[in-house]
Amino acid sequence: MTRSRRIVESGPATIATIADEVGVSLTTVSKVLNGRSDVAPETRARVEASLERHRYRRRGKRQQTEVQQIDLVFHAFDSAWATQIILGVEAVTSTAKVDVVLSHSGGRHRPSQQWLERVLLRRPIGVLLVLCHLSEAQHQQLQRRSIPLVVVDTDSATSASVPTVGSNNWNGGLLATRHLLELGHRRIACISGPEDVLCSRARAAGFVSALDEAGIPVEPELVRYGLFSAQAGYQHGMELLTRPDRPTAIFAGSDMQAMGVLRAARQLGLDVPADLSVIGYDDLPVAAWIGPALTTVNQPLRDMAGTATQMLLDLARGAELSTSRIDLVTELVVRESTAPPRR
Amino acid sequence: MTRSRRIVESGPATIATIADEVGVSLTTVSKVLNGRSDVAPETRARVEASLERHRYRRRGKRQQTEVQQIDLVFHAFDSAWATQIILGVEAVTSTAKVDVVLSHSGGRHRPSQQWLERVLLRRPIGVLLVLCHLSEAQHQQLQRRSIPLVVVDTDSATSASVPTVGSNNWNGGLLATRHLLELGHRRIACISGPEDVLCSRARAAGFVSALDEAGIPVEPELVRYGLFSAQAGYQHGMELLTRPDRPTAIFAGSDMQAMGVLRAARQLGLDVPADLSVIGYDDLPVAAWIGPALTTVNQPLRDMAGTATQMLLDLARGAELSTSRIDLVTELVVRESTAPPRR
Repeated sequence: MTRSRRIVESGPATIATIADEVGVSLTTVSKVLNGRSDVAPETRARVEASLERHRYRRRGKRQQTEVQQIDLVFHAFDSAWATQIILGVEAVTSTAKVDVVLSHSGGRHRPSQQWLERVLLRRPIGVLLVLCHLSEAQHQQLQRRSIPLVVVDTDSATSASVPTVGSNNWNGGLLATRHLLELGHRRIACISGPEDVLCSRARAAGFVSALDEAGIPVEPELVRYGLFSAQAGYQHGMELLTRPDRPTAIFAGSDMQAMGVLRAARQLGLDVPADLSVIGYDDLPVAAWIGPALTTVNQPLRDMAGTATQMLLDLARGAELSTSRIDLVTELVVRESTAPPRR
Repeated sequence: MTRSRRIVESGPATIATIADEVGVSLTTVSKVLNGRSDVAPETRARVEASLERHRYRRRGKRQQTEVQQIDLVFHAFDSAWATQIILGVEAVTSTAKVDVVLSHSGGRHRPSQQWLERVLLRRPIGVLLVLCHLSEAQHQQLQRRSIPLVVVDTDSATSASVPTVGSNNWNGGLLATRHLLELGHRRIACISGPEDVLCSRARAAGFVSALDEAGIPVEPELVRYGLFSAQAGYQHGMELLTRPDRPTAIFAGSDMQAMGVLRAARQLGLDVPADLSVIGYDDLPVAAWIGPALTTVNQPLRDMAGTATQMLLDLARGAELSTSRIDLVTELVVRESTAPPRR
């Protein structure tokens, strides 16, 4: 853990040390530390560099307010998926009497510098990122103010020093594909999430491993990546299902993608599950209600968010975490959308 | 509008006036005004009463911070519905550089006093309530601190002095029912939301008005109220569809309820729309993707939330609103779940 608040041994840097070295006033250093915008960019950069050289850490004292907040940042905010995360966070914060400030990074996997500046002004007790990450420089800016960071469902770009909570995506892909194999399917396609997101690659790898176990060669055209949306599921579904050698089963990267695949099947006159088995991912509340009710991989989104929030609150009160990488267990929920293939 | 910040003509009360009258220190009055918890409940009550008698209003000066926040409070937070509201709020707040603190009142239609105390400590520039309301006393506590309040999709208990943004629910009920009548349906059921929520009653009233227009008597057993959930839709759907004189069309109070009705129909072997027409309400993104794609009333949730947020920010900067009750237009979106009844 790099989160200790001790001053480095080589002699504690004070604000005065920094001001002296850079040749600016104490006020200017303080402004930079507090994220104020009325500092020239060039000056800010020099102060930041000096703070970094001295590995300056602000000592304990946090803004004296009785109201504590955490920042909850989504990479995007476009489905019932986000609702589950928020419910998980809220369950922990409401007990702890901590408020939640909500934002999203507009689909980018890294929040803007503008967002970070607002955070530095606001001084939350912690930051929880969902499916996005900070640059190393942004991360250091938080560390310097002793604002801990936890990431839910990380992508691969997250530094190893950041605590993360995810779920076992590889295992989810494995379980879903084994289920289809056990039903007798041999031509199985996989539509995963975006290829640059770690969980997508892990699920696709689980899919490939299950086929390997069964001694079935992987056909590259049947392994696809796309957005987690219904529209992306529909488009990939149409492409896969209009092939002369169409698959008899599709493992989708999200329940929304699976709904897109179901729509493609309906339009092509294919019955699910008689002509096509479909598996989703997430187990959103809606998955149990659509027709046919969706077989899907339960990703414990609420638990993931709750666990991450608890880690964040622990870090905020200065506790050491016993472990900084947690993956919760995924489970297959079998409903009506999977069946043996027609002979 | 009661939102003026002028001191009442009868002579401005100061904190000293209040302290003097109640027989407490200036500090105590200040603590009550700032929502601090270290004041005895009995003392707090006496100070509040005195503030009320004098119609004390804190003058302009708000906490000098560069970070502005609003509170967004849901009565519950359990569906894609809430996601649409948040997206609408965020679109306005992110431009205005205002942060959103999210909470929910745990299914109660009135936030707890504990929530209010946290708000008074935190001093947001405004409070946005969704489907819930404050007590008169809670509302006055906000007014006294010049924290404006706007309600989205109000229920009937909201005081007339509170600005609200809703949608024309009566018209939504009317449009949906007229569509079914035009298709030739005569036995039509309505499942609305909870009877104590104003929008539910307005939709049911629109349903009744459409039947009246067509000269069709209303059968009381075919007009029902329940939670907005899929489960409630399923239960009412089962009851309605197993009647010997089952309706040929059901107008549901939400898309989730409609999904419950669709499930009941599937279980009973009824084809939608051949045997049963179903209309939802809200037009959630998922409504277009389920099979059959759902005919539904588009409630402009994002626009409602955005309009309410803009009103709140206007009030926060001291502007007068030209109008304090806005209902946005609802529209019928015809998809695949409605058709003429079998002859």
